[in-house]
Amino acid sequence: MTTQRPINQKRHYLALSGGIGGAKLVLGLSHLLQENLYVVANTGDDFIHWGLHISPDLDTVMYTLAGLNNADMGWGLADESWNCLAAMKQLNQDSWFQLGDRDLATHLTRSHLLAEGHSLSAVMDILRRQFAIKSRLIPMSDDPVRTQVNLKNGQTLPFQQYFVREKCIPEVRSFSFIGSATATPSVAFLEALHDPALAGIIVCPSNPFVSIDPILSLPGLIQELKNSPAPVIAVSPIVAGQALKGPSAKIMQELGWPQTATRVAQHYATFIDGFILDQQDAALQSAIEQEVCKVQVAQTVMKSLDDRIHLAKICLDFAQTLLRTKDTP
Amino acid sequence: MTTQRPINQKRHYLALSGGIGGAKLVLGLSHLLQENLYVVANTGDDFIHWGLHISPDLDTVMYTLAGLNNADMGWGLADESWNCLAAMKQLNQDSWFQLGDRDLATHLTRSHLLAEGHSLSAVMDILRRQFAIKSRLIPMSDDPVRTQVNLKNGQTLPFQQYFVREKCIPEVRSFSFIGSATATPSVAFLEALHDPALAGIIVCPSNPFVSIDPILSLPGLIQELKNSPAPVIAVSPIVAGQALKGPSAKIMQELGWPQTATRVAQHYATFIDGFILDQQDAALQSAIEQEVCKVQVAQTVMKSLDDRIHLAKICLDFAQTLLRTKDTP
Repeated sequence: MTTQRPINQKRHYLALSGGIGGAKLVLGLSHLLQENLYVVANTGDDFIHWGLHISPDLDTVMYTLAGLNNADMGWGLADESWNCLAAMKQLNQDSWFQLGDRDLATHLTRSHLLAEGHSLSAVMDILRRQFAIKSRLIPMSDDPVRTQVNLKNGQTLPFQQYFVREKCIPEVRSFSFIGSATATPSVAFLEALHDPALAGIIVCPSNPFVSIDPILSLPGLIQELKNSPAPVIAVSPIVAGQALKGPSAKIMQELGWPQTATRVAQHYATFIDGFILDQQDAALQSAIEQEVCKVQVAQTVMKSLDDRIHLAKICLDFAQTLLRTKDTP
Repeated sequence: MTTQRPINQKRHYLALSGGIGGAKLVLGLSHLLQENLYVVANTGDDFIHWGLHISPDLDTVMYTLAGLNNADMGWGLADESWNCLAAMKQLNQDSWFQLGDRDLATHLTRSHLLAEGHSLSAVMDILRRQFAIKSRLIPMSDDPVRTQVNLKNGQTLPFQQYFVREKCIPEVRSFSFIGSATATPSVAFLEALHDPALAGIIVCPSNPFVSIDPILSLPGLIQELKNSPAPVIAVSPIVAGQALKGPSAKIMQELGWPQTATRVAQHYATFIDGFILDQQDAALQSAIEQEVCKVQVAQTVMKSLDDRIHLAKICLDFAQTLLRTKDTP
């Protein structure tokens, strides 16, 4: 018996990503894969600001792939100006979330296309083409799923208010993904999952709680990952007990989790076949392999473009070694 | 018998205005009257662009009264930047209507306040206060009335497409004010008309067809002007057969009207008590007085702020001499 996969068919890969941390690896993957890469980004951070639909993670990935991202700030566009924001302040409008003049064009275009009835998936496909991005850029869902931060003081905050306005200072009790129970993964996401050429799914080194969990909260999604013939690997966002960027380690502490890569591997244990651990955490390898899955030790700290491409190559090679049973003849 | 009007009460005035030409006189009036001036602006030019509600005439008046208008362009803000527009062009979005980065703050604020359920009147009152404008700035209606240009070639165009995109080049057969039959004047407009302290109504030197006629098209409005105890005066937008700004004279020609101030006076004949004629057209005075109403000859070409204030003073003084019968004890 032979598989249905034609010989010499291109291998396609699917990356699950949040914002900046994930976007670094996505950039490396896109250099290797171009149109053979699907990127599904978290939309739990999406919100309405100044009446516009803002998709922080999708845009961070998009600007990164277009080579237009502001590397210093970690969000938004390079070579940005802030004249509209200054005028909004003069009009006494909210200014805690900063939208640059050039960035506004993305939000205006997205918002009016959504108002005209396009799905978020369709809008992002239009935008990524305008930015000449060959990889597919896909929202996790076209339905609204909104990450809510439940604080230890009993209050709740929409994610961006916690993340940007409150600078992650309030202590977190838990997160809720409002709307996820009735949301469905986007059609393009499901098509990627069911692509017969899919050779690997990569969970990027994004925040597990606020970037990856919203994706995993979609009904049936974890089962889709379990059922996929393609192996699933995750790259640790925790290196030597620290998050390289963002509040992951602080949140782990507040949730009472050990601040270790091991705990992240355990979090993904039901659906991953492989885990990439930073070389600084090599001592954790045997424990994770015993408890969770195969481990690849690598340099996961990505400072240069070469670092990004190097880690991407390791992901692809690692996935090759992890072919799931269903996928072999 | 005495009137109901208290002695020594402030005199209030109401100006009806389009964009740039009208805004010049409105600025002069506001210097003299401050909070005792109501300005009602045409909203027939309003349209949706980039998903935002644009109110060209209201904004031209607002920016002029705030001292922030771009005098060189005749629209928009001084000291403007165009980075969002450049980014919109890169995203292949419409760029024939130019929105500057600072100007965008006005449209964003208006659009999201409208989406939250505020009326256009309420929004403009919020905006003019943010711009520290003491005069009231009032849209003619909170209902949508949209000026449509009916061309001689049989096509129709929304006003801004005719005015900005097509640069007024196509020949005009007529104008329609879509929605006016079911629109009502805004509550604030009616309150201004019924203000017991109203001492004069001034039709600014705006385009009669596309700036003043949309206001006059509102059901009952001409009757309101006829019934007002306050005298109504109009300032000619045509000087020596030319429009000082905009396409008035060209449109008059295409409609088969004589390109004269006399024809404008005739157009307003049913409700005006006085007409202000430019000194270059002094020869028309007796004919207009014979056929239409009292005439004041003045320098109506406003180059400096002093010119604006001077003409405003002439308007107020002229109105004083024209007290309507109902208004006298």
